[in-house]
Amino acid sequence: MSNLHPELRYDTVSFLSDYGRADEFVGVVHSLIRSTAPGVGIVDISHDIPRHDVRAGGLTLARSAQYLCPGVVLAVVDPGVGTDRRGLAIEVGDGQSVLLGPDNGLLAPAVAMVGGATRAVSLTNTDYHLPAPGPTFDGRDIFAPVAGALCMGADIADLGEIVDPNSLTPGILPVAREEDGDLVAEVMWVDHFGNCQLNLDPDDLEGWGDVVQVQVGTDPTADWRQLRRVETFSQIADGQIGLIIDSYGVLTVAVDRRSAETELGARSGSEIRLRRLDDADRPSAGVTTSVELGARKGDA
Amino acid sequence: MSNLHPELRYDTVSFLSDYGRADEFVGVVHSLIRSTAPGVGIVDISHDIPRHDVRAGGLTLARSAQYLCPGVVLAVVDPGVGTDRRGLAIEVGDGQSVLLGPDNGLLAPAVAMVGGATRAVSLTNTDYHLPAPGPTFDGRDIFAPVAGALCMGADIADLGEIVDPNSLTPGILPVAREEDGDLVAEVMWVDHFGNCQLNLDPDDLEGWGDVVQVQVGTDPTADWRQLRRVETFSQIADGQIGLIIDSYGVLTVAVDRRSAETELGARSGSEIRLRRLDDADRPSAGVTTSVELGARKGDA
Amino acid sequence: MSNLHPELRYDTVSFLSDYGRADEFVGVVHSLIRSTAPGVGIVDISHDIPRHDVRAGGLTLARSAQYLCPGVVLAVVDPGVGTDRRGLAIEVGDGQSVLLGPDNGLLAPAVAMVGGATRAVSLTNTDYHLPAPGPTFDGRDIFAPVAGALCMGADIADLGEIVDPNSLTPGILPVAREEDGDLVAEVMWVDHFGNCQLNLDPDDLEGWGDVVQVQVGTDPTADWRQLRRVETFSQIADGQIGLIIDSYGVLTVAVDRRSAETELGARSGSEIRLRRLDDADRPSAGVTTSVELGARKGDA
Repeated sequence: MSNLHPELRYDTVSFLSDYGRADEFVGVVHSLIRSTAPGVGIVDISHDIPRHDVRAGGLTLARSAQYLCPGVVLAVVDPGVGTDRRGLAIEVGDGQSVLLGPDNGLLAPAVAMVGGATRAVSLTNTDYHLPAPGPTFDGRDIFAPVAGALCMGADIADLGEIVDPNSLTPGILPVAREEDGDLVAEVMWVDHFGNCQLNLDPDDLEGWGDVVQVQVGTDPTADWRQLRRVETFSQIADGQIGLIIDSYGVLTVAVDRRSAETELGARSGSEIRLRRLDDADRPSAGVTTSVELGARKGDA
Repeated sequence: MSNLHPELRYDTVSFLSDYGRADEFVGVVHSLIRSTAPGVGIVDISHDIPRHDVRAGGLTLARSAQYLCPGVVLAVVDPGVGTDRRGLAIEVGDGQSVLLGPDNGLLAPAVAMVGGATRAVSLTNTDYHLPAPGPTFDGRDIFAPVAGALCMGADIADLGEIVDPNSLTPGILPVAREEDGDLVAEVMWVDHFGNCQLNLDPDDLEGWGDVVQVQVGTDPTADWRQLRRVETFSQIADGQIGLIIDSYGVLTVAVDRRSAETELGARSGSEIRLRRLDDADRPSAGVTTSVELGARKGDA
Repeated sequence: MSNLHPELRYDTVSFLSDYGRADEFVGVVHSLIRSTAPGVGIVDISHDIPRHDVRAGGLTLARSAQYLCPGVVLAVVDPGVGTDRRGLAIEVGDGQSVLLGPDNGLLAPAVAMVGGATRAVSLTNTDYHLPAPGPTFDGRDIFAPVAGALCMGADIADLGEIVDPNSLTPGILPVAREEDGDLVAEVMWVDHFGNCQLNLDPDDLEGWGDVVQVQVGTDPTADWRQLRRVETFSQIADGQIGLIIDSYGVLTVAVDRRSAETELGARSGSEIRLRRLDDADRPSAGVTTSVELGARKGDA
C-alpha cells in the first residue's frame, strides 16, 4: 500500500466518547487533531455512549478493536475528569497503535483484545496540552493535541512519565455463574435493533438442546420464556424469541425485525437466568409465555 | 480537476444505513473501507433511516442521488440479512458509479434516478468478504470490504456472478389516484422540520387554484383543512398551513417555523385526500379548521 | 507544515446547522463541497442545533471559533430561508477564514470572537449557485457550492456585492443585571451532561464567598437553592449543587455525574436569580433545599 502521508507516523485517529453530537465537543476535538496533524483521517466509532458509562464504552471499544485501522485510538468516557485519575497513552503491538484515554478501565478491554500493552505513559508533559480555563474538557485540552502529536511522530515516552502497564485500572466484566443447575448470565449490550448480547459463548450452552428457558431479572417468581436457538434472524418465527450467535461470535437474544429488549423487558445489565428445557432433576420452570404479537408492553 | 489519488478507481464512498449512531456499526464500516482503500473519503448520507424501513431508505437515497459524488454508494437497510436475498453491486453510467446493497428494493429508486443499471453482479465471490462468526452483519463482512475493493480498482465482474439488471427487486412507490373527484395522495417523507412531502408533482394540481382542501387518513368523517399554495415558508401566515414546491420540486405541506406533521396529525405513509375548494359538483367539504395556535395536539 | 493540497486556498470547511442527521441534508452538502473542491476536509461542529434557534447556533459557533481550523466556516440555521434576508460571506483575519451563512445574527458572535470582519459580501452572484426547484434549501443550492468555490480560490468579491461589515445583523446576547441587590442572570446553554452555563464571568461574583443562593425562573415565591463554588465536578458532594468555571471560563451550574438541568428545573433561557448568602441588608432567602437523591423530578 502506498503511503499517502509519508510525514505522518499514524494517519488515522479512531474516536469514541460519551460527548453526544448536539454540542460542539466532537467537532472541536476533530478541529484540533486536524490542526495539529493535517491529513489525518478521523473515524468516529460512537459518541453516544451513555453518559459516564465506562463499562459500555469499554465494551464498544473492545468489540471494535480488531476492525480499526492501525493508528491512534482516542476514547473519552471520563466521569473523573479533573480529579487525579491519570490520563494515559498505551502502546500496543510494539507501536502499531496507541490508545489514549483516562485510566478508569475504559481502555483495558480493548488493550486485552489486541494482545496487551507494550508501553504505557501517564500524560504529565504539559508541553503537549492546551492551556485551559478549567479542568473539565480534557478531550479538547489534553487528548486531542496529544493525539495529533502522536500522528506527527512524537514518541509516547515524550508525553509524560512511563508507567507499568500492569498498573492500569482493569475493566470489570461480569462473568456468568452456575447456580442451582441454572446458568446466570447478564445482558452486556443492547444494540440499536434491540438485540441483547449476553456474556456467554456458544460453548457455554453445549449440549443444552434447541430450546432454552430464560427468566429476566432477579425475581424468582418472574415468568419463564423459551428461546429457540437459530442461525439467522429470519429463522425466528412469529411468536418466537431466538438465541443466535451474533456477528461477534457471542450468544444474543433476538426477535426477527423487532426488539428483543422490548420483548424480554431486559436492558443492559439485566440478569438473565438460563435453564435447560430437559432438566430432569428439577421441576418444570412453570409458565412459559411466547411473544405477544398483539400487545407488546412498552412498545413505542 | 487534478486527481488527488491516482491509485484509486473511485475516491468517494457515500454511505446510508439504518444502523443508528449509538453502536460501533458505522465506525467499523468506515474503518474497514479506509483499511482497504486508504485515501478514500466517506460521506455519511444518513444512518438514522427507521429500522428495517426499506422504503424510507430507498427514498432518501433517490433524493440524494443526483447530488452525490461519483463513486461507490453503499446502502444497508436489510431486514433479510442472513437469508438467501442477494447482495448486489449495480453499475450505473457505464461505470461512473457503483451502488452496493441488498436486493430488496432499497437501491432501485436511486438506480432509476441516475438512468438505470449498465451491469449488475450478485456478490458471491467470498474472496472479497471477511470471515464472520455469524451472518448478521453483512455491512461489515461483505459490503465494506467490497466497497474498498471497488475503490482500489476491482471490476464488478470479479465480485461474483453477473445478473440481469432487470431481475432486481423493484422499489414500490405509492401512486396518487383519483377517487370520486378527489385526489388521494400519500405522505412520502416527513423531514426534520416536520414538512410533509406528498407523492404529487406541481402539475398534478394544475388549475386547482390557490387553496386546496385536505383530509388526513381514511376516516371520511375526519376534519377538512385548507392548504394555501405558496412559494416560501415565510408566505405562510400565522394560522395557515401551506402547500409549497420543496427543494426537490415536489408538493409538500408546510407550516412556517413549525411542524406540519404535528399540525396535520400526519406521518410518513398517511393518506392525504385533496379536494378542490371550488368543486361545484360536490357538497362542501364541511368543517375547515385552521391552525390552532394555542393548543397544538401532540406538540412536545 | 507541508501543504497537502497546494491547489486549495482553504483545506477545511467547518459546518454547523439545525438540519439534524436523519435526513440526507448534511450528506448532500458534504457531497457538493467534495465535488467542487476535492481533497477538502469537512468538520461537523453540530447539526443538532434546535430547529430555527439562531441564538443557540450562534453561541455554539462562538464557543467553537477559537478552536476551528482556518478555512471556511459554514453555518445554516435559517428560519428566513426564501425571504429577502441576505446570504453572506464574511472574511475575518484578512482572509485567514471566511464565514458563510444567513444574515440573521447567527455568525455575528463568532465573527466578534475572532476579531471582527475585514470584508463582507452578499451572495448575489448566481453563477456560483445551483439551479433549484424551490428556494427552501440554500445550504445545498447556495452555501455548499460557494464554500467549495472559496476553497478552490474564488475571492469573496467574486461572490456578489460588497456590503458594509457594520450592516450585519447583530447577535442578541442576554446581559445579566442587578436588581434589588440580586444578580439576575440567564442560562445560555445546557450541555449534553446537563451542565447549565450562565451569562456570568467569574469576576461577576468576586467577593460573594463560597456559597451562593439561586432561584430559578421569575416566580418570587420559588424555592431558593444553594450553590457551592468548586473547581471540578468531583468536588461537588452528594446532595450538593456546584458552581464551576467551565472549560470556556464561564460560570456554570453543575452536579457531579448527574444533570444540573434536571436538578434545578432550568433550561436554556431560564432566568437565574443569584443572592449573596451573607447579605445582611435583606431577609434570608428562606427555604433552601438540597439535591433530593431519592426522587429527582423529571428524571428519565
